[in-house]
Amino acid sequence: MRTLKVALLGCGVVGSDVARYMARHAADLTARIGAPVEFAGIAVRQADLPRPGVPEHLITTDADELVKRADVDVVIEAIGGTDRARDLITTAFEHGASVVSANKALIAAEGAALHATAAAYGVDLYYEAAVAGAVPLLRPLRESLAGDRVTRVLGIVNGTTNFILDRMDSLGADYAQALKEAATLGYAEADPTADVEGFDAAAKAAILAGIAFNTRVRLDEVYREGITAVTAADIENAKAVGCVIKLLAVCERSADGSSVTARVHPAMVPLSHPLAAVRGAFNAVFVEAEAAGQLMFYGPGAGGAPTASAVLGDLVAVCRNRLAGITGPGDAAYQQLTVSPMAEVTTRHHLILEVAGQPGALAEVATVFGRHGVSIETFSQRQRDDGCALAMSTYPTTDAALSAAVVALRDMDHVRRVTSVIRVEGT
Amino acid sequence: MRTLKVALLGCGVVGSDVARYMARHAADLTARIGAPVEFAGIAVRQADLPRPGVPEHLITTDADELVKRADVDVVIEAIGGTDRARDLITTAFEHGASVVSANKALIAAEGAALHATAAAYGVDLYYEAAVAGAVPLLRPLRESLAGDRVTRVLGIVNGTTNFILDRMDSLGADYAQALKEAATLGYAEADPTADVEGFDAAAKAAILAGIAFNTRVRLDEVYREGITAVTAADIENAKAVGCVIKLLAVCERSADGSSVTARVHPAMVPLSHPLAAVRGAFNAVFVEAEAAGQLMFYGPGAGGAPTASAVLGDLVAVCRNRLAGITGPGDAAYQQLTVSPMAEVTTRHHLILEVAGQPGALAEVATVFGRHGVSIETFSQRQRDDGCALAMSTYPTTDAALSAAVVALRDMDHVRRVTSVIRVEGT
Repeated sequence: MRTLKVALLGCGVVGSDVARYMARHAADLTARIGAPVEFAGIAVRQADLPRPGVPEHLITTDADELVKRADVDVVIEAIGGTDRARDLITTAFEHGASVVSANKALIAAEGAALHATAAAYGVDLYYEAAVAGAVPLLRPLRESLAGDRVTRVLGIVNGTTNFILDRMDSLGADYAQALKEAATLGYAEADPTADVEGFDAAAKAAILAGIAFNTRVRLDEVYREGITAVTAADIENAKAVGCVIKLLAVCERSADGSSVTARVHPAMVPLSHPLAAVRGAFNAVFVEAEAAGQLMFYGPGAGGAPTASAVLGDLVAVCRNRLAGITGPGDAAYQQLTVSPMAEVTTRHHLILEVAGQPGALAEVATVFGRHGVSIETFSQRQRDDGCALAMSTYPTTDAALSAAVVALRDMDHVRRVTSVIRVEGT
Repeated sequence: MRTLKVALLGCGVVGSDVARYMARHAADLTARIGAPVEFAGIAVRQADLPRPGVPEHLITTDADELVKRADVDVVIEAIGGTDRARDLITTAFEHGASVVSANKALIAAEGAALHATAAAYGVDLYYEAAVAGAVPLLRPLRESLAGDRVTRVLGIVNGTTNFILDRMDSLGADYAQALKEAATLGYAEADPTADVEGFDAAAKAAILAGIAFNTRVRLDEVYREGITAVTAADIENAKAVGCVIKLLAVCERSADGSSVTARVHPAMVPLSHPLAAVRGAFNAVFVEAEAAGQLMFYGPGAGGAPTASAVLGDLVAVCRNRLAGITGPGDAAYQQLTVSPMAEVTTRHHLILEVAGQPGALAEVATVFGRHGVSIETFSQRQRDDGCALAMSTYPTTDAALSAAVVALRDMDHVRRVTSVIRVEGT
């Protein structure tokens, strides 16, 4: 029985847990793969750091040489970033190795090209860990739902922003305070941009939409809005109507099946929806399919051990494929569906306006909405000393129509301020 | 490109939806499999029933002939029951066909033998639909978590009993009323025994434990207790301590990994636990693994369309394997772990006793618990005209110790009645 050889690129939070659990679960891995698996080498930037439990003789600083080795069956890429990771993965493919990656940014940006290269060399590219950490999501979408038609994927796929919004909700903290706490507890990085501006979630949305709808969704086709503009007042306003605010990734297929959309933005979610109960840094993803109905997948979306779990699950699959002399499902994009822009996306909205207290203000506001084809579902008015606050929720309307209505409202004499405009999901 | 041929056994609720979705999703199935797939025949008991959307020329009453046909690649078994289904599946294997089944009773009873026969003939046996309907669970356990070590599976895997308990909880209905409503709405069968006595959930627990722990768990090794003895008072008592009652399937690996347990019984679950929020006929399963942490899978656990979704997902996998000339993961039981009896299972318990009002009664009760090694965590006493009701919850204790303590309590002069004893999970 031959031994399969693994090259590990990167030995940080994820890489070191991959090494640790690979040793710890060695007997199970052997049984499940049908052959033993061991490291050919572990490539790091600094060889002399202490790495408890990682055999020193495996450490190398020459990743380029490692991925070219003829005895390497599988390369696990856990270095992150895009250019260097792409080059190493491509070299690995060219030298006959399959690749397991946890790199959402890379896969979202260059998944199509990487899949093509993998296919050309007859090897596998797996990346379950790139979306929602340990939560099995890509394999269920690709394989379990392979006999069904997915219509919608709606989820919380970024733990950092969920932690921040959760703290704002439960403590009444403002964004800056909650971000500081997230950083202190290690949930937010020193530069939190990728998380709080929605880049991380957008990469995951692009990957999810591509697999769910079997089409290509480029990163620049994903509408992206982060949480930096969410205020404590927004959270209070959401509470007042029985909602919480979550950063959602939403991927939808149009009713006629010819187009899809993918977007990331804060949204109000009713407390009765299971996503509202997802606390802290957890991830949860709803999947709706024609025959299956609504499914939900929930679990830790990040962290060394959960990511290692997903990486090693892929490792077993890739090793099994290799022993059988086959490759797995591969690139899912066999359709060329249109990716529609955000302007065409239809959602409910919740708005708060400050208007002058005169009679007739509401009538004028209602007229503006009517002119833009926006129907109001609920409405409440709160008197203040110097005017009124109007809280309104709309029936589903396109983003374009709603935006045009908001521009028109801002021009009205009676409207002092459009305080808040937020989309509503999960109703 | 060759066309793969499918024989469908049974065209009832599940079978007819399999036929319907296979036609509806034909183009996607072809793309995902890499070859077209079509029916060789559909075996039914009565040929002359109306079956809208099912091509008449495919209908046959000769299932035995159908599964022997040389052109059949995959047999989908949707007839249920054990003996006849086993014989047909075995014949299919012997004639070179792979099999997709939704039959939990059969797989739980004869999965080992069927896997052995499938392996002997170099074909596949898949049955994702047998547990939790459309919810991807067996594939994630088998494949996504193949690099991890599952320690616990805890879930609601029977929709009928969850519907009944949910109605008892939300309406204060008693068991008989709730069962009647379930029957009226089609959630309970004319003979509800398999569901309400826990046989269905026990079959699923045996399958789940086997796959989660890579060992053989026989149906008679699963402890089984149904919901027929759950009273409206039990539900009220649970509410009083912030819990709901759910019928749970619980599969656990011992801390040292050498033994496992599998059991089905009603249990109190705190409202704060996600399983408490699973309403109606939905299923939800928590999976705990060493590296992944806690994952949850949620969705419709039964019904024609959800079951068809799972069956067709398996069909795609089996067809892909067939085209590649391989078989899938197969029998998961590479370990021979001991299955410990219920007496050795450790859980918390909640008890209610009626005792005479004399001073000293509590001391005597406490002494009995102490003598049996059962520690009380919380305790409350409610005065009544003719005595007291004691509500107690214990620290984790073995079933054997708790049972012995209850026997001793029943013998005490001061104890008039042990009103309720129920296990507590998810704390």
